[in-house]
Amino acid sequence: MNTENILTTGKRTILFTQDKPFVLESGASLPFVEVEYETLGTLNAEGTNAVLICHALTGSAHAAAASNQEPPGWWDGAIGPGKAIDTSRYFVICSNFLGSCYGTTGPASINPATQREYRLTFPQMSVRDMVHVQHALMDSLGVKSLVTVIGGSLGGMQVLEWALLYPAMVRSIIPIATGAQHSAWGIGLNETARLAIMNDSAWKNGEYIDQPLRGLALARMIAMISYRSAASFQERFGYESGTDQMFRDGTLNPFVHHSPLFEVERYLHYQGVKLVDRFDAAAYIYISRALDGHDVSRGRVSVTEALSSIKAPALCIGIDSDILYPKEDQQQIAAAIPRGEYAEIHSRHGHDAFLIEYDQLNRMVNSFLERQT
Amino acid sequence: MNTENILTTGKRTILFTQDKPFVLESGASLPFVEVEYETLGTLNAEGTNAVLICHALTGSAHAAAASNQEPPGWWDGAIGPGKAIDTSRYFVICSNFLGSCYGTTGPASINPATQREYRLTFPQMSVRDMVHVQHALMDSLGVKSLVTVIGGSLGGMQVLEWALLYPAMVRSIIPIATGAQHSAWGIGLNETARLAIMNDSAWKNGEYIDQPLRGLALARMIAMISYRSAASFQERFGYESGTDQMFRDGTLNPFVHHSPLFEVERYLHYQGVKLVDRFDAAAYIYISRALDGHDVSRGRVSVTEALSSIKAPALCIGIDSDILYPKEDQQQIAAAIPRGEYAEIHSRHGHDAFLIEYDQLNRMVNSFLERQT
Repeated sequence: MNTENILTTGKRTILFTQDKPFVLESGASLPFVEVEYETLGTLNAEGTNAVLICHALTGSAHAAAASNQEPPGWWDGAIGPGKAIDTSRYFVICSNFLGSCYGTTGPASINPATQREYRLTFPQMSVRDMVHVQHALMDSLGVKSLVTVIGGSLGGMQVLEWALLYPAMVRSIIPIATGAQHSAWGIGLNETARLAIMNDSAWKNGEYIDQPLRGLALARMIAMISYRSAASFQERFGYESGTDQMFRDGTLNPFVHHSPLFEVERYLHYQGVKLVDRFDAAAYIYISRALDGHDVSRGRVSVTEALSSIKAPALCIGIDSDILYPKEDQQQIAAAIPRGEYAEIHSRHGHDAFLIEYDQLNRMVNSFLERQT
Repeated sequence: MNTENILTTGKRTILFTQDKPFVLESGASLPFVEVEYETLGTLNAEGTNAVLICHALTGSAHAAAASNQEPPGWWDGAIGPGKAIDTSRYFVICSNFLGSCYGTTGPASINPATQREYRLTFPQMSVRDMVHVQHALMDSLGVKSLVTVIGGSLGGMQVLEWALLYPAMVRSIIPIATGAQHSAWGIGLNETARLAIMNDSAWKNGEYIDQPLRGLALARMIAMISYRSAASFQERFGYESGTDQMFRDGTLNPFVHHSPLFEVERYLHYQGVKLVDRFDAAAYIYISRALDGHDVSRGRVSVTEALSSIKAPALCIGIDSDILYPKEDQQQIAAAIPRGEYAEIHSRHGHDAFLIEYDQLNRMVNSFLERQT
């Protein structure tokens, strides 16, 4: 990871120190937890107009750009005056979660005890750990209650855990394209991504000097395929006649130098390389494991029991073309939460539609939040 | 590849030699092409009761076991007396296609000119090349016309090309879960599998001494994920409480030795390792490229033009849960072929359902073939 490429337009705050370490779900503890976060809008005197945004696997605290001077945020289309998350009404917070590499403590951070990166000595964090750290941040910011907690994918998992861990603080939730437990298919996919990283000889069992570039890029490419549907790729790249080039010269062997022949390959290579420039391999592995371990039923009898205990109104958003977190799963979550309702984004873009279809998203979130006041 | 593990219960025949080399679609030529094939049943005197079965990416000529003494075939459920392909009526042929590593000439074969494996010096073959070699085999066996040509996935691509390249010889076709052109999503997926192999330091740009085990296993694992649906994995593995194990010991870092925690991971690891034992890395890459290059429109104006020129009756079979070759694509193929009809396998098993749902498959193929006589 090129540290210059990390988007750290946010603020940092130290939430846990040696005197008051952070104890993880696993029982391990961290003697120092710093959190990177960003805010937009103004907190009211009562501390009750806050909205928390939870980011996904490779996201950061930079959900939205506060001005044109800032680089784009990952959810600019949903955040701002008049949008789903209206910054003229709400105090909007997004923080980089525990274990990530955008300013918050994680495997890429320096272990104060050794003065070296944690890497594989970092304790495995869970989605619940991410939420507990976010809660400590809310305390430190003077937030008393949350209008809503919203997020897609891994973000949606944090949303569900928020409602379960801090029910008194959460007035509504909006989980999008997520799961109550991570699916077997998703775990399998994550495992191929982890192996992609670990198979790279530069990985060196976590003792890498430089990032395992090829492995991390491949992990991203594998993930990208699940974020989109076949129809989405088809719409974007069509059927390509790269085959003409492929058979142009019978003596040319395209594998020797392995230059991508098709647009879709160039796209994936580009996406892979882009991530390598801004992410850490060990963080990727830890976060993917936290995803795998997500399970609202852990210690709570069953998924249905857990979800049915959620008192807050919930807008559960599914995407009709999502193959990673199918819409049926969102419907089930909505059905299990007593005050749950289901809304559907219609899109060919697959899982990533929650980062694309802003017209639909803004409309359904606005309508839901209006009804909560 | 452990050569002892290759299933070569079949016969071999040399179809092209120095005097009459095989000229590929690319213009390259092969001075020696040997083909491994198997047959079941008896060819009639007129040579008109033959059925050709086309196999998929990692398949072989061993489609069905002729007796209990033989290892199981990859399509035993569809081949035999009273099944979809009735061996008491038909002379059933399956041959390992050009470029594979189960007895037919391919990148893993010895180049007669150098006495070393071809590896990356093998010319890139296409699906059409596979069909031309199969046609030469039909000639050598005395087959005059084919009752049907049937196959799924890459096998279905060969089926379509058979109807286009040898229309006079094909009385009907049964393409299953396939494409008229390979999709952008499929190409993207293949590219991640190729990179998995090439990122393995044992690959050595094709000059490997031992198979790049970890890369080839990972390629298979990636592919397996697309062969099944999320629902299929869910049905098989359920939501797992491997998370209990995951957080059992806060000091245990599950990545250091990276033992799989979840059943689905164990399953994928097993599948990956199983392939390594029986397949060649260079062959995998070449075959995946042939898949990418599949395009019935190449040199034939358009897909619709090509498909509409097929005179043979066609039973196009889709699988409702297939994310790799969606059923909509099968419906479009059926609609474009003048005498095309569509039938659907209902299954939660995704693409692999054509290797699982034999009751449905046998019923629809039987019904179709009855009407062709």
